Amino acid sequence: MIDYFTEDRSAEQVNGRIGPATSPRLAHVMTSLVNHLHAFIKDVELTEEEWAAAISFLTRSGQICSDTRQEFILLSDILGVSMLVDAINHRQPEGATETTVFGPFHVDGAPERQMGDSISLDGKGETCLFEGRVLDLDGNPVEGALIDVWSDNEDGFYDVQQPGVQPPFNNRGIFRTGADGRYAFRGIRPVSYPIPHDGPAGQLLKALGRHPWRPAHMHFMVTAPGYRRVITHLFVSGDPYLESDAVFGVKASLITPFERVDRDSETWRAAYDFVLQAE
Amino acid sequence: MIDYFTEDRSAEQVNGRIGPATSPRLAHVMTSLVNHLHAFIKDVELTEEEWAAAISFLTRSGQICSDTRQEFILLSDILGVSMLVDAINHRQPEGATETTVFGPFHVDGAPERQMGDSISLDGKGETCLFEGRVLDLDGNPVEGALIDVWSDNEDGFYDVQQPGVQPPFNNRGIFRTGADGRYAFRGIRPVSYPIPHDGPAGQLLKALGRHPWRPAHMHFMVTAPGYRRVITHLFVSGDPYLESDAVFGVKASLITPFERVDRDSETWRAAYDFVLQAE
Ligand SMILES: [Fe+2]
Ligand SMILES: [Fe+2]
Repeated sequence: MIDYFTEDRSAEQVNGRIGPATSPRLAHVMTSLVNHLHAFIKDVELTEEEWAAAISFLTRSGQICSDTRQEFILLSDILGVSMLVDAINHRQPEGATETTVFGPFHVDGAPERQMGDSISLDGKGETCLFEGRVLDLDGNPVEGALIDVWSDNEDGFYDVQQPGVQPPFNNRGIFRTGADGRYAFRGIRPVSYPIPHDGPAGQLLKALGRHPWRPAHMHFMVTAPGYRRVITHLFVSGDPYLESDAVFGVKASLITPFERVDRDSETWRAAYDFVLQAE
Repeated sequence: MIDYFTEDRSAEQVNGRIGPATSPRLAHVMTSLVNHLHAFIKDVELTEEEWAAAISFLTRSGQICSDTRQEFILLSDILGVSMLVDAINHRQPEGATETTVFGPFHVDGAPERQMGDSISLDGKGETCLFEGRVLDLDGNPVEGALIDVWSDNEDGFYDVQQPGVQPPFNNRGIFRTGADGRYAFRGIRPVSYPIPHDGPAGQLLKALGRHPWRPAHMHFMVTAPGYRRVITHLFVSGDPYLESDAVFGVKASLITPFERVDRDSETWRAAYDFVLQAE
């Protein structure tokens, strides 16, 4: 008796085709994926029209992708998948700096700048001094840590979203700690911005009655030899979107007071110490 | 206490954002999708590298899509999703013709041809007479049924896969039944073919140790006023891929004997009666 496809045993039949030479990890991941995918379809009794809408949605998502637009990352972000993968892969000891979503706007190869330099090249926005230390879990300074930072400009756009409008590497830079573990740089007090919402991800948000806004934040990627990399944000305390971040990125420990200082060199000051976990 | 994202309550937190004005059906489908998607990620503890591979896989799938290539349908097909959706939406009474996958190669607007005409315009392949009746569940002939048929050519390609090589509407046509419910047309004895496997779907099949082949089949879409549409195939009995169709499309009732007749007008003959269910 041949085991032709049936509704009842559909996932089992698909998974039964996995060949013996398949990588055990791939077989495990795909078996679970097929089980959950088929369970979802059965759970909601997906209609043919809904299936066709899903095919169209995925196709349009792929076709809007470019060197500077990643719709599938946006979808992962708004469905909480990015934060879940981050959580699973960065379970951390008490006291270590918490992580959050990487986001689609990091750029490799930003220039290394001198401590105290400004990353804001377009002269827009309210100046802010960011400063603090990179420490280990025992409170000792970490020397030679690279602090890669990026934010939007005053208009809520990253430089890569406005090529030809913003200078290259606007609001981006890398800083290297010395023996005292200290860092300091000037940027702008970041502003809230909507994620790109003129494509499928935005259509989904709208259909679900959700807004596309993210609370204002400065991105940080901190690396140091012998320590686990930390990818995180500092969120601007008091932002109206802290409780409804479109990508679920906010954690209480990352909300940072931005103190108004009104100095010649800067209007605001934000202080934060990063605590790294040894590898 | 603000309900910031946590690993434990991730799906609940994402679904908690659905607004009150959301269509109840969309809310139901998306809630189930997020629950199953998060459960899958937790089940396998998806790594960041695997997440990035998935983003890349989906992006490449979208970008290979064109007017004549639908990679997401291929993915749906090879994961058994297309057959599952078909099964859920076409639960049928005993005796009605069983359905199978629509596939990505149907073309709207094929010419209506006269009973007995040939759909094979390239002169390739072994001629086959297809004939039979369209009946209701009580065995009465159905008049005015449209039988839309399509198959690959002798080389295993549909016309739309070889524009400029095959004549337009090669191996396609629509036939209309008279009062006796009978149909007859000439085509070729279809041949097994691999689904397009030079893209992400093919890479996945290969990684899973699966082949891309489909057993030889003639596609049928039968419609008639007052009856449910039937989308199905007739499979060529004896084909080596009947037990391992890459898209899980085979059902025992659709496997059809192809009888060698060696007449002047045709080499083969396949007979099949379609039984429609009233709407
Ligand atoms: Fe951001
Ligand atoms: Fe086909």
